[in-house]
Amino acid sequence: MATPSSPPAPRVVGVILNGATGRMGYRQHLVRSLLPLRDTGLALPDGSRLTVRPLLVGRNAAKLAETAARHDIPDYTTDLAGALSDPAWEVYGDCLATTARPAALRQAIAAGKAIYTEKPTATTFAEALDLARLARHRGILHGVVHDKLYLPGLLKLRRLLDGGFFGRVLSVHIEFGYWVFEGDWQPSQRPSWNYRAADGGGMVSDMFPHWSYLLDNLFGPVQSVYVQTATHIPTRWDEAGQAYPATAEDAAYAVFELAGGTIVTLDSSWATRVHRDELVEFHVDGTEGSAVVGLFGGKVQHRSATPKPVWNPDEPDPWDYLADWAPVPDNAVFGNGFRRQWEEFLTAYALGRPYPFDLFAGARGVQLAEVGLESARLGRKVTLDPLDALDPLDALEEVAP
Amino acid sequence: MATPSSPPAPRVVGVILNGATGRMGYRQHLVRSLLPLRDTGLALPDGSRLTVRPLLVGRNAAKLAETAARHDIPDYTTDLAGALSDPAWEVYGDCLATTARPAALRQAIAAGKAIYTEKPTATTFAEALDLARLARHRGILHGVVHDKLYLPGLLKLRRLLDGGFFGRVLSVHIEFGYWVFEGDWQPSQRPSWNYRAADGGGMVSDMFPHWSYLLDNLFGPVQSVYVQTATHIPTRWDEAGQAYPATAEDAAYAVFELAGGTIVTLDSSWATRVHRDELVEFHVDGTEGSAVVGLFGGKVQHRSATPKPVWNPDEPDPWDYLADWAPVPDNAVFGNGFRRQWEEFLTAYALGRPYPFDLFAGARGVQLAEVGLESARLGRKVTLDPLDALDPLDALEEVAP
Amino acid sequence: MATPSSPPAPRVVGVILNGATGRMGYRQHLVRSLLPLRDTGLALPDGSRLTVRPLLVGRNAAKLAETAARHDIPDYTTDLAGALSDPAWEVYGDCLATTARPAALRQAIAAGKAIYTEKPTATTFAEALDLARLARHRGILHGVVHDKLYLPGLLKLRRLLDGGFFGRVLSVHIEFGYWVFEGDWQPSQRPSWNYRAADGGGMVSDMFPHWSYLLDNLFGPVQSVYVQTATHIPTRWDEAGQAYPATAEDAAYAVFELAGGTIVTLDSSWATRVHRDELVEFHVDGTEGSAVVGLFGGKVQHRSATPKPVWNPDEPDPWDYLADWAPVPDNAVFGNGFRRQWEEFLTAYALGRPYPFDLFAGARGVQLAEVGLESARLGRKVTLDPLDALDPLDALEEVAP
Amino acid sequence: MATPSSPPAPRVVGVILNGATGRMGYRQHLVRSLLPLRDTGLALPDGSRLTVRPLLVGRNAAKLAETAARHDIPDYTTDLAGALSDPAWEVYGDCLATTARPAALRQAIAAGKAIYTEKPTATTFAEALDLARLARHRGILHGVVHDKLYLPGLLKLRRLLDGGFFGRVLSVHIEFGYWVFEGDWQPSQRPSWNYRAADGGGMVSDMFPHWSYLLDNLFGPVQSVYVQTATHIPTRWDEAGQAYPATAEDAAYAVFELAGGTIVTLDSSWATRVHRDELVEFHVDGTEGSAVVGLFGGKVQHRSATPKPVWNPDEPDPWDYLADWAPVPDNAVFGNGFRRQWEEFLTAYALGRPYPFDLFAGARGVQLAEVGLESARLGRKVTLDPLDALDPLDALEEVAP
Repeated sequence: MATPSSPPAPRVVGVILNGATGRMGYRQHLVRSLLPLRDTGLALPDGSRLTVRPLLVGRNAAKLAETAARHDIPDYTTDLAGALSDPAWEVYGDCLATTARPAALRQAIAAGKAIYTEKPTATTFAEALDLARLARHRGILHGVVHDKLYLPGLLKLRRLLDGGFFGRVLSVHIEFGYWVFEGDWQPSQRPSWNYRAADGGGMVSDMFPHWSYLLDNLFGPVQSVYVQTATHIPTRWDEAGQAYPATAEDAAYAVFELAGGTIVTLDSSWATRVHRDELVEFHVDGTEGSAVVGLFGGKVQHRSATPKPVWNPDEPDPWDYLADWAPVPDNAVFGNGFRRQWEEFLTAYALGRPYPFDLFAGARGVQLAEVGLESARLGRKVTLDPLDALDPLDALEEVAP
Repeated sequence: MATPSSPPAPRVVGVILNGATGRMGYRQHLVRSLLPLRDTGLALPDGSRLTVRPLLVGRNAAKLAETAARHDIPDYTTDLAGALSDPAWEVYGDCLATTARPAALRQAIAAGKAIYTEKPTATTFAEALDLARLARHRGILHGVVHDKLYLPGLLKLRRLLDGGFFGRVLSVHIEFGYWVFEGDWQPSQRPSWNYRAADGGGMVSDMFPHWSYLLDNLFGPVQSVYVQTATHIPTRWDEAGQAYPATAEDAAYAVFELAGGTIVTLDSSWATRVHRDELVEFHVDGTEGSAVVGLFGGKVQHRSATPKPVWNPDEPDPWDYLADWAPVPDNAVFGNGFRRQWEEFLTAYALGRPYPFDLFAGARGVQLAEVGLESARLGRKVTLDPLDALDPLDALEEVAP
Repeated sequence: MATPSSPPAPRVVGVILNGATGRMGYRQHLVRSLLPLRDTGLALPDGSRLTVRPLLVGRNAAKLAETAARHDIPDYTTDLAGALSDPAWEVYGDCLATTARPAALRQAIAAGKAIYTEKPTATTFAEALDLARLARHRGILHGVVHDKLYLPGLLKLRRLLDGGFFGRVLSVHIEFGYWVFEGDWQPSQRPSWNYRAADGGGMVSDMFPHWSYLLDNLFGPVQSVYVQTATHIPTRWDEAGQAYPATAEDAAYAVFELAGGTIVTLDSSWATRVHRDELVEFHVDGTEGSAVVGLFGGKVQHRSATPKPVWNPDEPDPWDYLADWAPVPDNAVFGNGFRRQWEEFLTAYALGRPYPFDLFAGARGVQLAEVGLESARLGRKVTLDPLDALDPLDALEEVAP
Repeated sequence: MATPSSPPAPRVVGVILNGATGRMGYRQHLVRSLLPLRDTGLALPDGSRLTVRPLLVGRNAAKLAETAARHDIPDYTTDLAGALSDPAWEVYGDCLATTARPAALRQAIAAGKAIYTEKPTATTFAEALDLARLARHRGILHGVVHDKLYLPGLLKLRRLLDGGFFGRVLSVHIEFGYWVFEGDWQPSQRPSWNYRAADGGGMVSDMFPHWSYLLDNLFGPVQSVYVQTATHIPTRWDEAGQAYPATAEDAAYAVFELAGGTIVTLDSSWATRVHRDELVEFHVDGTEGSAVVGLFGGKVQHRSATPKPVWNPDEPDPWDYLADWAPVPDNAVFGNGFRRQWEEFLTAYALGRPYPFDLFAGARGVQLAEVGLESARLGRKVTLDPLDALDPLDALEEVAP
């Protein structure tokens, strides 16, 4: 069934996947991203094609062998150093636990590999920034997962922003959270370390790296932050049914000022009961219109449909305010965000183009968490120091052709 | 069907109503409160009865005469000093414009009348506090209107609090606001002075006195406040269709810490589109249950009905979170709040009992607005100095028996 | 009760109302417009005030007297010529039957009165245009009723247009009509002359003068028209229950090209069953958004809420297209349109300003009906000749100061 | 449970399917029509049975082999001429691209096969008519796909027409269309050639062949047509994201006169936002009743349920007109329209009966598009020349017994 003239063979990019048998590494990066890319290839904007050859790396040889066999993957190893010294592998992907990540990234950067990594990139801003500077100095392409940006609701929000729907964005109110059970009456749905400061728990370090790239990319750079933290539930019960003191905050109430003047208020709580359509919702108000979007759905109200209420508390107000909102249709099939981001990173890599969501952006997320906790300690608004290479255009010159 | 022995005649309390022909004075205080009290009387807890004899006071004699005639009121005058010197009038009620109020209150306090007044009691905290101290020194009973506490939704919230529904209250999130039209495309629904700082405009001075007594009385004393203000719409059009610069804030984003540890986040905006059932909504989370109430309606979710969501942004979440909330029934007829508060004040007066919503509480509201604006200027959390007579029990000893 | 310094007395304008006891003259022009104006006066933009003194004119002296007495009007007469020769009466208002109107208008124009008249201004375009030219030559202010423009739905449409909601307006589809019963089985709800050509009946002459000013003023001047007429019901039964042949069209299907390139399709039928919210609906499509408005209500769909259907007739389409539309709120109190238009006309008259809805605009309406019928006869698109004084600015110089 | 005497073997009809691996050929004609017919057979009105033996024809041998193997079909070839010369194949089915169709049909007609073909049958009316005349001269049975007639909504409409529901049909209003995205802000859902005249794009050639057979068969032959075209969106973005000028009309506004006097107005637009239940809706008004049907659903209003509105624009009209309509139940299972039409064609073929939807009907569709564009150019109503063999009865004598 060969056609008379074969098309040129696609370029094969060898990709190390470190942490390939972990939950995120296996499900999102291997099964939903790299394997489909291996099986169908990727068309590049210049007309050429690319495919990937994955190398599974981990500590448990038996688990690696089992995973490789299940998916017909010839290459796997427990020897990271060996893999990094082999020029056949051009890209280093990292899905390790956060505490193990910086050391592995340093090795991969030193080996000159292109880097694509899960977040947070480090446990401290200083280390995250150092990693970014090392990568820039080494002249490699580097990327960090920004998966929430690729969810349907936020893609629709991006479309509304790009289409000028809002006019000027005035304010954003974000409600995130749900009730995490204490663990006595009903078992908790989150691990106990999330509520212990000594184990790296707490709402701020868990969620602020996400809020960082969502705010920066959707509404503009964060300039200042004020955070009030709280530990609403002081005693919880762990996986063994033992009571323990919660030492990390289970809620964070933040106010951000963005570069363009937009004000963001953001409530994040594991001790709230959900009165919304989704676990997180973004209410965006602009001069021309407003939207309320979640991770999947969204509604809009254009100023043409905006009612004119009069504040008169002495009389019940019969207006049905929720009926003033129209749903935002999908109008597209939104593919898996992890795969889509791998495709964009590999395209940038193959064509020597810059990649905006880099280790500096990853460091921004760690920075926001640190500054947020500092603001909570000080009881005042704290300004974020700008990173010196946030402009995506800077990345261009750093990529070796 | 006449009863054999007539009941004893009710005690008649003479009430000066200064500002009786103004909008609030006429509609709420005279027509909905004092006249029904005059016509039906009031049963006191000790079995006796009370009625009122109003004296209308104002500057326009013709308007006073016309109002008095319409409602069959024999007493009216433009001479406030004369009224205050006449012992027939025991209570002084004040519905003047805020700028005229302090001077009139000083006269009435000096005359030893019991005081019942609209709010804000003064334009500065210093003056409001001075009035409260004067009244305490003079040993009179004093009261300030707290009307929002008597609205159906907040009475239901009070009922939930009193019934122990929430367990310990952890946090409260309040959303208030709506879109105030700029005035070009569609006329604005608020007067232009609201948006000029020089004319006393701005969200903080308009709404924080309300938030003050609602928070203090429902959830506990405010201990600290952080406020971020914004003037989202910099140009508006006035009543004559002329553009003018908006110099006062049209939004205030606040975080409060209350004495009991409850955290309150409160967004107040005239530049937001309403995605709620009512123009203001209070979301209260407690250990045992949560509620979302407005000025009229309300819904609850007890912990027995609380779902256990898992945060997994990769999959659409089919749960209908709004269906987890049950409406709070009225189960009562909620009368006019102004009348109900007059009844409570007059009952305290007649029986020599303390009255909690006094001039110190009124001064608290002015204080919260001042401290809120100070916080916005400084960019940090500001602690509220406690007033030295906030405990309602203090009031008891000060009232002459 | 006189205030110390009286305001200056308002200017009194004497208004002849000819046809004051007819249905439209009495209800809309006298009771809802001129009498409220007489009783409350009218504030002019220059700070002065105006009031009216009506003179009722008609043929039936008894009916005039009865009407005058009921509303406390001192002035009425059957002598039009006498009224026109008296300089106390400055404005001539005409609510006569169309056939009687041109002769009366000629007298009033000759007498130099300002003219404000019902429509159509004449039964032929030639006569309507002649009246307009006479009025211009005489240098008087002239106005014609354009009442539909003042209905709430069309005021909201005007607001959407003024606010730029639509972007560029591409097309308008108007459905007008309802089922007029034939008169046999159920009595007809319209008079039989409407269906007789010899008596001036027919859909085109009835409705096209309305469509003319609505299209011209909302969407831009009509440049060409194509009309297909039909007499769907050839036999009807008259008021006496007698069958008669319908000789006038009971439906007209039109396509208009407007100056800006907008295409309008307009179905007008007395033989259709209503599948709409209102008897007439305007569906407006623009680059940025669409609206469907009736005389009272309206809905919008902004492009942000526009779904992306795929035309695949082999599969049922589960999308709920009607749910994509949001209601347009009133946000205003819309007063009676007849009164509002009288106020605008009298303001222009008192201040010597131009008035856009003049006898030329009235002639346009008659022209559109004539050209529409010509198109139907010829079976081709017919271009409208422009009138030489349609620009409202021209009117300014013609008004004697 | 075997029956004593076996039924006679069914007649086997050999059917050439040219274009069997194309989208329509494969999905609708092969998988949903011919294969079920092959597998279950067809009972004819005379009591006998018929089955089919398909021969797949195409240009790609590998694709043919793969399709044949998947569905267990023994016969396939790339040699059309050979197939046509083999008497085993009695029927020629054509699912080629329109540009390739006429040449293949000529071959099949010359070979004396019965013809069943997709539409449009040719790109010009002259050629389509020539094909029809050739087929008639050759004395073969010929049929053309009329699939929309078999959709549930239109079958229900047919049932209403056949049952005399409407009385005399007076008028039909058809709204078709939806918003085809321009391609910049959101990708377009139609190919760019649809908007280029040089590539055969445009609304008229795309949709008028459909409107032709729907009108002819449901309401009677089209006698005249008036069309106004428009290119509402002058710039679009193609599949590569490049802007291009739209040179073909994206909307057509038509008025048709049918033989029986019915007037049809028909708006077809790719630049409208849908305010209907379905992408196309037919509003049919008759003396006895009206219906609004889409491709799947439908509603009716009988004259017994017809309200009697009075046109009085000065008062809001509280009547709920949409509530006057009752849904039309399915009351049947509507099978796949392509299969049902194949069954009807093969029945006519096997029994030597006439078949109404023939090549002349196919030519009518091409004619209507050509005449429509001519009308738009000329700005006048154009009469359609009658084809000389439109009467289905004529077809009877032409079929060889």
